[in-house]
This record gives sequence, C-alpha cells and structure tokens, in this order.
Amino acid sequence: MLDALFKPKAVALVGASTKELSIGNVIIRNLQRYGYKGEIYPVNAKADEVCGLKAYPSLADIPGEVDLAHIIIPSQFVPQAIEECGQKGVKAVIINSAGFSEMGEEGARLQAEFLANAHKYGIRLFGPNCQGIINSDPALNAYCNFTFTFPKPGSISVVALSGGVGALIMQALDDLDIGQRLYASNGNACDVSIPEIIHYYGEDEGTKAVILYTEGFDQPRDFLEVARKVTAKKPVLAMKAGRTEEGAKAASSHTGSLAGVDIATELIFEKIGVLPFRDEGEMVRAAMAFSSQPVPAGNRVGIITNTGGPAVIATDVLVDFNLEVPKLSAASIARLRETQFPEAALENPIDVVATAGGPQFRAALDVMMDSDQIDCVYINFVTAPFTDTDAVAREIVAVNRQKRKPLVCNFMTNLKLERFQKTMAILKEGDVPFYANPGDAARALGSLVQYGRIQRRDIGQPHLFDGADAARARTIIEQARQTGRQVLTAGEVYGIFEAYGIAVAPWQVVRGADQAVAAAAAIGYPVVVKVDSSAIDHKSDMGGVAVNLKDAAAVSSAVEEMQRRLGHFGELGFLVQKFLPGGRELIIGASAERNLGHLVMFGLGGIYVETLKDVVFKVAPVTRVEATEMLAGIKTAALLDGVRGEAGIDKQAVIELIQRVSQLLGDLPMIEEMDLNPIMAFADGAFAVDGRIRIQTGG
Amino acid sequence: MLDALFKPKAVALVGASTKELSIGNVIIRNLQRYGYKGEIYPVNAKADEVCGLKAYPSLADIPGEVDLAHIIIPSQFVPQAIEECGQKGVKAVIINSAGFSEMGEEGARLQAEFLANAHKYGIRLFGPNCQGIINSDPALNAYCNFTFTFPKPGSISVVALSGGVGALIMQALDDLDIGQRLYASNGNACDVSIPEIIHYYGEDEGTKAVILYTEGFDQPRDFLEVARKVTAKKPVLAMKAGRTEEGAKAASSHTGSLAGVDIATELIFEKIGVLPFRDEGEMVRAAMAFSSQPVPAGNRVGIITNTGGPAVIATDVLVDFNLEVPKLSAASIARLRETQFPEAALENPIDVVATAGGPQFRAALDVMMDSDQIDCVYINFVTAPFTDTDAVAREIVAVNRQKRKPLVCNFMTNLKLERFQKTMAILKEGDVPFYANPGDAARALGSLVQYGRIQRRDIGQPHLFDGADAARARTIIEQARQTGRQVLTAGEVYGIFEAYGIAVAPWQVVRGADQAVAAAAAIGYPVVVKVDSSAIDHKSDMGGVAVNLKDAAAVSSAVEEMQRRLGHFGELGFLVQKFLPGGRELIIGASAERNLGHLVMFGLGGIYVETLKDVVFKVAPVTRVEATEMLAGIKTAALLDGVRGEAGIDKQAVIELIQRVSQLLGDLPMIEEMDLNPIMAFADGAFAVDGRIRIQTGG
Repeated sequence: MLDALFKPKAVALVGASTKELSIGNVIIRNLQRYGYKGEIYPVNAKADEVCGLKAYPSLADIPGEVDLAHIIIPSQFVPQAIEECGQKGVKAVIINSAGFSEMGEEGARLQAEFLANAHKYGIRLFGPNCQGIINSDPALNAYCNFTFTFPKPGSISVVALSGGVGALIMQALDDLDIGQRLYASNGNACDVSIPEIIHYYGEDEGTKAVILYTEGFDQPRDFLEVARKVTAKKPVLAMKAGRTEEGAKAASSHTGSLAGVDIATELIFEKIGVLPFRDEGEMVRAAMAFSSQPVPAGNRVGIITNTGGPAVIATDVLVDFNLEVPKLSAASIARLRETQFPEAALENPIDVVATAGGPQFRAALDVMMDSDQIDCVYINFVTAPFTDTDAVAREIVAVNRQKRKPLVCNFMTNLKLERFQKTMAILKEGDVPFYANPGDAARALGSLVQYGRIQRRDIGQPHLFDGADAARARTIIEQARQTGRQVLTAGEVYGIFEAYGIAVAPWQVVRGADQAVAAAAAIGYPVVVKVDSSAIDHKSDMGGVAVNLKDAAAVSSAVEEMQRRLGHFGELGFLVQKFLPGGRELIIGASAERNLGHLVMFGLGGIYVETLKDVVFKVAPVTRVEATEMLAGIKTAALLDGVRGEAGIDKQAVIELIQRVSQLLGDLPMIEEMDLNPIMAFADGAFAVDGRIRIQTGG
Repeated sequence: MLDALFKPKAVALVGASTKELSIGNVIIRNLQRYGYKGEIYPVNAKADEVCGLKAYPSLADIPGEVDLAHIIIPSQFVPQAIEECGQKGVKAVIINSAGFSEMGEEGARLQAEFLANAHKYGIRLFGPNCQGIINSDPALNAYCNFTFTFPKPGSISVVALSGGVGALIMQALDDLDIGQRLYASNGNACDVSIPEIIHYYGEDEGTKAVILYTEGFDQPRDFLEVARKVTAKKPVLAMKAGRTEEGAKAASSHTGSLAGVDIATELIFEKIGVLPFRDEGEMVRAAMAFSSQPVPAGNRVGIITNTGGPAVIATDVLVDFNLEVPKLSAASIARLRETQFPEAALENPIDVVATAGGPQFRAALDVMMDSDQIDCVYINFVTAPFTDTDAVAREIVAVNRQKRKPLVCNFMTNLKLERFQKTMAILKEGDVPFYANPGDAARALGSLVQYGRIQRRDIGQPHLFDGADAARARTIIEQARQTGRQVLTAGEVYGIFEAYGIAVAPWQVVRGADQAVAAAAAIGYPVVVKVDSSAIDHKSDMGGVAVNLKDAAAVSSAVEEMQRRLGHFGELGFLVQKFLPGGRELIIGASAERNLGHLVMFGLGGIYVETLKDVVFKVAPVTRVEATEMLAGIKTAALLDGVRGEAGIDKQAVIELIQRVSQLLGDLPMIEEMDLNPIMAFADGAFAVDGRIRIQTGG
C-alpha cells in the first residue's frame, strides 16, 4: 500500500533549508501554501527554524510519528539517512537528491546501499532524482513536490516518468482549469514503480481518469498486467515519447535506459485498452472532455456551427479520427426548418448562421440530441458581436446538463473583452468542455469516440489448441542447446511447427543425392531442395536453395551442386520439400522483448515486407480477435481478398496459424527469434514452407 | 490597385445603425475604437447622428470625397446603393450584406445586377456576404470590419476566405502578441479575389509574411501565377481545409462551390513554394517564428534543455519534420565540459540540468551558435523555482539578438506567478519566439526549416523537346472530334504519343486476321493483339486483349475469337503490338482540372496503383526536377531501383517521358483525361504499351 506516500499524516524534510529557492526550502513553502493538513518537520542540524517552523537536528529528535520523509541532501549521505528513517519508523521516503544510478558506478553503489537499508526496515522508496507527489484531497492538501503549479482538486490523476513533462501536464490541466487528484513523478524509480502507482490510482475512488507519460518500461509485463485491470475500471490516457530513433536516444540519455525504438509500449497500450496520444497537450485537452462528458455510443457526430470555415476544419479533423458525419433524417430537417433562420444550412453540419441566438442554437442541439443517427455533438460558437452570446452559452449548458450525449464546444472569442469573459464563465460553470479552435475541440471529441471504440472492443482470451505437444518441442530445443547451437536446423524447426499443428509443406531431411531422390519420389514432384546446416544461416543468399525441381535428375544434380559449393561448411544435410507454387507469400515472425514476452509480426512476404515494411505487430499471446485485426491491419490487406480476379486467400487458416504460433511462443519462452517465411497461402489452406528459430543459449 | 480598399481616406457606411450590436453600428464603433485617421460618414435616412457622428440621409449628401463604402442593407436594395456609390465617385465597396449567390437564383440575379452597376462606374467590390478589411498602419488604423479583435501593428498580413477562420487566425496571432499588418476576408468574392489580395500583400512593403486560409480556388491558375511571384519575395503560409470528402462537402455547403476533394490546391502550394499547414493554430505559431527569426540554412538542429522528457518529445517532433540531431564535435563537447555542471549531458540534446542558470544556458547557446554542424536551435526552458530564470531569459535574448541562427524556445512555466511573468516579459521584449510546450515549439521550428528547404528548391523551367509535332496531334484530335468521339482509338492515341517522341512498343492497326498476321511478322514475335474500337472502352475487361502470341496461328485465332465475341460492337479494328515481357509496369496519367490545366500522375502500375493507391501528382507543366521528385515520391520508390537482385529501371527515360507528356498536355488543353497504362520500364528504356485519351467534345 502506498498510503504513507500519497496520504502522509506527517512529513519530515531531511535537508530542510533556510535558503530561499533551494529545494529543501521550496518543498516546505509548497506544503504551507497548498495548506497541508498534517505535520511538517524540517530536519536541519544548524537552524532552529525553517520557514517559520521549528526545525529538528535529526529525525530522532522529532517528537511525533513521521510516515513520509523527503531526503534532500548530497547523495553520499543518503544511505545513512535511510537507516535513520528506519529507526524512526518512517514508512515511505521521497529521495529528491540526484547522483545515483544515473551518474555511473559510484552512484549505483550508493543506490544499492540505501535500497538495502530500506528493505531492512520495509520502507518504500520513491525516486531518487525525482520531484515527488501531490494529493489535492482538500482533507489533506499534500504538496510533497518542488514544482510551481497548485492544482485545484478534481478527478484526474497524473503519473509521469519525467518531472519536466509531469509539470507540463499539471500546468496544462491547470491552465484549462481542470481539477486534479493525485500527481506523481518518480525519477529513477528504484523501488515504487509506475505500474504500482497506476494500480494505486486504479484503486483510488477519487480518480476518474489517469494520465500517464512514459518513455518505456523496465518491466513492461508488470505494466501490462496492472494497467489491464485499471483500464477495465477507468480511462487511462497515455503518451509514450521516444518514438523516433533520435527521440529514443534522447530518452536513454536522461533515463540511462537502453536506446532503441520501443514499439512494445504502444502495442501494450493497444492490447489493454490504454488511449494513446502523441502530444501531451492533446492528451490534456482530451482529459478535459473525459472529466465531464459521457462516452459516446458510436462514431456519428452532429456538427452545429455559426460560422462556415471552422466547421470545415473540424470536419476534416473529425474524419481523421474516423468519425462519420451522417445526413440528418427528413424529420430532423423538417424540425430545423421550423426553428432556424431561412439562410441556415440544415444538413449536417447545421449552420445556424452568425446571427443565431440562444433559441436557434437550442433548437439545433435538441434535434441532434433527439436524433438516433447522432452519437455525439460538436459545436462551433464564435462570439459574433451582434448576438446575445450569454444566451447561446446558457442553452449549450442546459443541454449539456441533460448528459444525453457527449458534446464539445469550440469557443472562438476575444477574452480581452469583458462581455465574452462572462460568456466563457457560463460555459465553464456549466461543465462544457470548450477549446479555442476547431482542431483542438475536434481532437478532444475524436479521442472520446476513440475511447468508446476501445471500451467496446473485446479481444477475448487466447485459444489453446488441443493436441499441441509442448514436450516434444522442448525436447528438440533442449537437444539443440546441449550442442551449443542457437540456430535450429530445418528439421528441428519443422518438428517444432508440427508439434503445434502448424501446417508445413511435406518434407524430409536427407543426406546425399540418393536419399534426396527417394524422398522426392515419396513426397511427389515438384520439390524444393534446401541445404540444412546450422552453420549456414542465410541459405538462400548462399545458393543453398533450389526450387521447382521436376524430376530425379534435377534433384540429384541440385544436391551435388550444393555439396560442391558448400561442402567446406562440413557434411551437409538437405531438406527435400514439396514445391507449392502460385500462392500468396506471407510472413509471420516473433521476437522476444526484454521482460515482456514475445512480439508477433504478420505481413505479406517478399517485397511487401522488405521494401514497404508493411507489417503489423501484437504482443503475445495473440487472441483470435487480434489475429483477425493483424490481417486487416496491413496496408495491403486488400491483396488478401484477391485482386485482378485472383481468388483471395484462406484468411481463417492464417488467423489460426497466428494463434498456433502464439501458443507455441507461450510454451517456449526461450525462443529469441522465429520466422515463418514464407508461408504460402492459398484459397484453401496456408503452409509454412520455410522457418527459422533462434533460441537463447545457456540456462 | 486596391488602395481605395486597404487605405481608405474616408469611409461611408450605407446602413449605419443606431442600434447597438448591429453590424451597421459595430463597424463604426470598431473604426472609432481602432483610431481610424480618415473620415467616417454614417448614411442613415432616419437618424441625425450615429455613434456620435453626424449621419447623412444619402451618399449624395456627404460633403467630402468617399473612397470606400460599406453596404449593410437588405440585399434587394444593394444594386441601387451601388448605383449611388458610382454617382458619388466611391472607388471601392465592401458589401457586408448577405443574400446573394449563396442564396439561390434571386440572390444570384441581384448579384449580377449590382456587379453590372459597379462595372459601369469602375467600382471594385469586396464581398458580398463578407467581413471586410483591416489595415493596422498607425498612420491609418482602418478597421473596416465587424470582428472583435484589435490587432497591434506588425508585419504579418492575413487573407481568409472564411470570416470565421479569419477571425480565429487574427485572434490567435493577437493571443501570441504577434503584430499584424493587413487583414481581409472577402466572403462570396464576386469581384476582388484572393489572388488579387495576395498580389497586393506581395507589393505591400509593410508585409513581411502572408497567412492564407482557403477551401480551394475558383480560378486556381490565377492564384498559381500571382502567388508564385509573391512567394519569390516573402513567405506565404497557407492552410487549405476541406481535404477530406466530408470536409469538402461542408465547404461546398457554405461557399456554394462544387463539392469533391480538391487536391489541386495543395499541389499548387507545393509547386510555387507556399508553406502548407493542416492546422491554423500551428500556422499562427509558425508565423511567430517567421516574424522574428532568420531562415535556417539547413536542417540540423541543436537542442538545449534543462529537463529530460520535454527534450524527448521535442526530438520526436523535430524528426517528424525531417530535422537531424547531429552529434557535436569533440571540440564542442570539450567546451561544454568546461562550462556545464558535472551532471550535465553534453551530447545533442545538451541537458544543462534543472539547476542551470544564465551562464550554463549561455555557454551551451554559444557552442550551438559557433558549431558548423548546427543550423538552428531549440531550447527547453522550464522555470525551475530554484534558479534565476530572469538571468536565463536574458542570455537567450542576448544570443537571439545576434541573429546568427534561428532559435525557438519552449517556455514551460506558471504565469499565475508574478516572477515568471517577468521572465516571460524578458523573452517577449527580446523577440524570442516562445511556446508553452515542446510540440508547439518544435513544430514552429520545423516549419521554419521546411520553409528554408522550399526556398532553396528550384524546380527550373519546363523543357520543350525538339521535334514535337503539335500540329499532327491537333489534327488527330480534330478528326476525332468531327466524328463526335470523345475517346480516341489506339491508333490515334499512339499517333499523338509518337508526335511527342513518347516511345511506344512497335505497333500497327489492322483489320482482320490476315492483316494481323502480316503485321506481327513485320513487328516480330511475340506480339499482343488488342481490339481497337472507340465503342469498347475497357477492352481488357471485355476480353479484347491477347498477350504473348508467339506465332501466326496464335495471332490469327486470337483475332477471330475477338471478332466472334465482340463483333456486335460493329466492324472491329485491331492493334498488333510488340509484346514486351519482364519490365516494371508503370503508369502516367493526366486529368484536366477546372480553370487550372492538367494534373499529371505517376505511379507503379497494377496492384500498386489499384490497391495501394501509391501515386504522386503534380500540376502541369512538370519540370525535370518535379518529374524526378515524382519518381522519388511514391512509397514504393525502392522498387524502381530493383529489389532481390533485379536490375533497376531506366529512371532517366521515365523522367523524360513525364516531361514529354507534360509538353503534350500543354499543347493540347482539350485533353480531359489521358493514361499511359501500362508503361513497361526496363534497365534501358521505357515504352508505353497501352494508352487512352478522352477529349472534350464540342468547341
């Protein structure tokens, strides 16, 4: 439980300072300014008083109990300070000090040392090299942080790896006058982790929606498991930065984590229903809509506008979010005709025109709310100087209060003019989410609709096929391991595939031309011959593959030719396999991700994967719904249905294949990389015709 | 000359009103409030005084000269009012009234009537159904508009089709405290057009940059010709809305223009060097950078930050804009090591860390300005409460004043706190473009870099190939026209191609099997036989194409088979053509756009164009540079270079082909649609192997 951290009854500050603007001073001032309801105990050996509060020479001198301590002293003294926290009975510590794992070996040693001390006493550590937390609950008002924004109470909770971005989000929420609940930025995160914080927010009844900023996770599987439960209860809005190679490099330089573009985090978001963003401002503006509006039942938007161009801009953006702008029914249009000015446009968008007042806006809103063709409403409201803008705002508020369908408002005005400030106050008081331009308003509504879509999506459970022979597959891998090989032979690969019911074009492993000819006869011509040696990794590039061999002579000469050219790799095995021409080439791949499990990839083979990089990834295990999404998710999905009169492929077979691969990966975590490339897919069935598996060496 | 419109010495208001908040009252108040230096003449038959000014019963009663009149009366009285303007010697009229071409037939009739009156007197008309203009020149202060934002003088001029978006842009500029020069929103645009206004802004010395909002152009060629000259002198930032089908529909409903997604406008922007935007807020924020910063010489950005995460976000966005984040030289890093705190990160991004003050920021800035690896600088400046933020701001300003390289600043702060307001004032006073979050700042810098790229791009002049035989092509088309045909026969199409030196696989047009066999023998086997009848438009789908015919028997039976199946279309001609297997299929297309000329399309043929829609368009005439960009611009461009060991195609031949097509289109404006599909491209040469031309009927 993180209650000691987020709901401290008394806070001690080890390193409290009389020096204005120092962190050990700013945090005390922040606690005072925010009206912290608990005790504040400055610890300072030299001063009697800090910020008007009695200071104590040491933690031990503090008379009362302390559940939370800030540590704001040079890094080399931190282990001893934690020891003293333990002796005092402190339950949680925020280490604001820097100079630990982010600063090389000596720092890492200090970190290990204070962690050991904390474990000894069961203290939870937050940080080091971090900002801290805020709890806006008016019964507590805990501002254990050195930032400079004082959020009003509300229902949005924020967690951010980066303090800079955390502060930015907090400020942006505050600029939009959105109330906040809990805030946490945990820096190096040596103990209390983001998954734990997310879990805590999930349990917190005052938190209605969670905002997360991250640059990736050390323990992505933990995040996946925890956040999955939270998303089932409340919206989690998240941004993952470092999505470009250069951005990932910048992230690694400030977090000390490994560089490299991390697609897994975005895939986890997708898998568990986190609403993803690429811009923290957009995320905050969406949160504004989440904090007051119901989730739309569908994606059909009604647009009401009193000006032309902004409706065009909004429409473009709404369509970018896959919203539909349906025609209104004849009955709706008839109702509008009775209530709108003659020059109004009665289609969707409804242009009530610039001279529209409260009655016209209200009538248009009522039509949208009543229409069963409309799921949500977008309003452009420019404060024309010749209308009663307050009346318009009051009608929008009245309809908003009905909470029938979500609405957002683009409120275009000049707030330097007092009369429009008043109009704005009406909207704000009435909990209408309003924005200063059409794009921002449309993106917020688009996010709400996208969330509705996510909420309705059910990926189901992974299917486990009967008859999968995990023991056989493990034995094959164990044998390869014992010979110290990382790359399996074709025979081993196909053996594993067969253990999981993955259809493979008929094959035999042989040595020499005579055996190859016999195998070909058994399999039936035409056949392919491939060299099968763990010493030859890219056999195709090495001339180790001969396709479409139609008779014994061709098989025999192909084998002999390979023996001549590749014999210096040692005695060669060969794989003889049925040649399957004319299908569509597909590829399924898998790779192990650190502390997560496997990512599964699907795409069309050949140039589509090589040149167009047209592939889709999912985090294993992959359910039937997800496998279906993978087939639909490539840009070239239309090719699966057949083009130019060709027959489409057997999609169900491929969907099953992906699920079988997923089951295989779940049983065999030691697989580092696996490819089924190509898979030949036909109108009835799909067969792996080549495969590659690389395993971890050692235990 | 539009001086009477933009620099009026005296303004009359026909329809001046004593009623507060009416348009005829608001405009007068705006003129007064903005401090208009000329005469204001309210015209009102019933009142002696309007807004404290003497009112006149009619224009004729005004004692002085009037160069500009507002018309704010019901539509049916406008023609007479224009007549009276003519008699009074008014030079320009802003018709704010609505109820004309946007309102059906009667409105259109009224519009024609007042236009005729205006022509009679040489009056220039602005509107109708429009806002008006603003000229912020302090010597004039003309606010001939009913909007509610009072821009401070500056160097950015705005023109917007939509008054709503115009007002939005004006407000957004004002919110960022960016000075504005001229403003115009011309509604129905019955006379004074956006190209004319753009031209005027181009000539206006006080205008340093132009902002344009449009939903398309009635006369795109005019815009292209005019704006091309303006972009040569000053940046033109533009947004075209209605880019989705639904957005285009919304645009057409408020402008009365034709629906349909208009890609031509964006292509014109690209051709003439207009900087395109998809969000008016982003455009305005970019304008802030343009108004104070030099244009970057290249795309290499130096990032300075005092906080981690926002640098990651900024890096992602800068990379989206194709900026590079180069490593700094060893010498630069050595200089940084001397001046930065030990915990600073000295790579690019330079993380000066949260405790950095003025000296650390200054030293980092100096390194970036001195480095010949850096073209522009991005700064994250979070106002850490424990630093002297004013000192940091002063150093940024000092470096900005040197004007060595462009810089932008992401200034993350809480403006509710007075001390940070002061810091902001230092940045503002120092002309530093600053933004409230990393994405906004990065996008503004990205736009500046993108503009530098545009400015350095020279597409050159269209090349006219010697030996093109326009007369022969025109004769072919004339003959087809005389027979009333819109679709040309294959023989006609190839004849036109040959007139422009477009390589065509050898061909002959024949009747019957015997002639076909003779032609095939002359051409050389293998051949293709295609039915050639203007009555059969999609011959391939109709079974009218037989490929890879290797001997006389095959040719003969193919012709007879087609005669049997397609004979009911009348006596058939046949095209016998050399069969060219094994090349890469390409497509070049062209279509005539209303009032613009032709768009030229290039892509890979077959599924690439049909399924992936992977094509690039340009506005004709297409220069060599543009044709080269077309080849590089498709997503599958790598296929042109060859994949999996194939030879690449002869790109120069294709580039020449596109230019020849462009020349052909320039000579033959009566072509409505043309396809060269497929073109077979080889390692040495490219040949059209099928073509289709549709021409306008009639004169």
